[in-house]
Amino acid sequence: MSDRRGLLIILSSPSGAGKSTLSRMLLDWDPTLRFSISATTRAPRPGEVDGQHYHFLGEDQFKRQVGQGGMLEHAHVFGHFYGSPRAPVEEAIGAGCDVLFDIDWQGAQQIVNSALGMHTLSVFILPPSIAELRRRLVSRGQDAPEVIARRMQKSWDEISHWGSYDYVLVNDDLDVTFARLKTIVTATRLRRLQQPRLVDHVRALQTEFEELP
Amino acid sequence: MSDRRGLLIILSSPSGAGKSTLSRMLLDWDPTLRFSISATTRAPRPGEVDGQHYHFLGEDQFKRQVGQGGMLEHAHVFGHFYGSPRAPVEEAIGAGCDVLFDIDWQGAQQIVNSALGMHTLSVFILPPSIAELRRRLVSRGQDAPEVIARRMQKSWDEISHWGSYDYVLVNDDLDVTFARLKTIVTATRLRRLQQPRLVDHVRALQTEFEELP
Repeated sequence: MSDRRGLLIILSSPSGAGKSTLSRMLLDWDPTLRFSISATTRAPRPGEVDGQHYHFLGEDQFKRQVGQGGMLEHAHVFGHFYGSPRAPVEEAIGAGCDVLFDIDWQGAQQIVNSALGMHTLSVFILPPSIAELRRRLVSRGQDAPEVIARRMQKSWDEISHWGSYDYVLVNDDLDVTFARLKTIVTATRLRRLQQPRLVDHVRALQTEFEELP
Repeated sequence: MSDRRGLLIILSSPSGAGKSTLSRMLLDWDPTLRFSISATTRAPRPGEVDGQHYHFLGEDQFKRQVGQGGMLEHAHVFGHFYGSPRAPVEEAIGAGCDVLFDIDWQGAQQIVNSALGMHTLSVFILPPSIAELRRRLVSRGQDAPEVIARRMQKSWDEISHWGSYDYVLVNDDLDVTFARLKTIVTATRLRRLQQPRLVDHVRALQTEFEELP
């Protein structure tokens, strides 16, 4: 048995609020943390590598995996399927590692509320303002105005689900937010339910107590 | 409205596992943290000051307070009553402060499971071994062997309730345990439910979003 019961750490935020940067920082901080690489049916963007940024799947292939219970969660967004493959998550949890998910509210809701028997920690990152969020989306410079407008609508949809996360952090300052995130992850790993070895420790105390003169 | 919703922080452990030392360290670390001074009907021990170590009450007085709902929890242990007065806790929580309780499993159970509408964080401190616990009890040098034997039985009763606390820490090393306790308190204060101001922030984001061109 592993010393710790692995956690599914879910990070959600509207696009541009810092979720991807914070995910990278967490993975750099803790090399034992595994990242759940999403599967998608959308085409790779320039620079995206299959199996690293996403698992790029055909629609038939994606639907077959869903049918076989191979996705922990999946959703249809802007005409494409997205999902979290189950096998690598189960492998990581079995090895006592935590898995980090960079997913939207729909995925988070499915994972938190499904009877997976796995423990979750969910954190939502809010932007300091809509103006700041819009600025970050525009400065990526890749997209047409109507795409940005559509993304802003999606951002608001995402923000509107903040109330179902365990923790909600306003990302005013990246270093402060990251420090808080580390504190939250460290504390959650100390929860009684993440510490299966406690049972052994208490059993040893009981034996010792019963053998007192 | 205060920035934070106050927490009831409950620390339990068998006598000698480090609970009182850790309580003092927490109070030194955070001067805004209030300590819940228990009421008791037992006589003061040498050096104990009324209103500082305990509120020493007569039995009639104690029972009257219980009858008026003036105790958040109370119990009868070794022929004496013990309880946590409600008024100072409500005052502290109203001011957005957290309150620290150094109480046993019975008190913890009553506070966590009563409909107080207050948020709790419960932490149990386990000793590394029964031998170490006994050594610490004996080295206080105040008590007769039969008193120590009775205390050891009470310690085991206390330990047997470890499974209903949010966090359980094995106090192998005081500095490590204290660091973990600080992390747990810091993280719990960041929980969504402790942050009533988030509602205002999201409302401001919504207004800003609706006014986008």
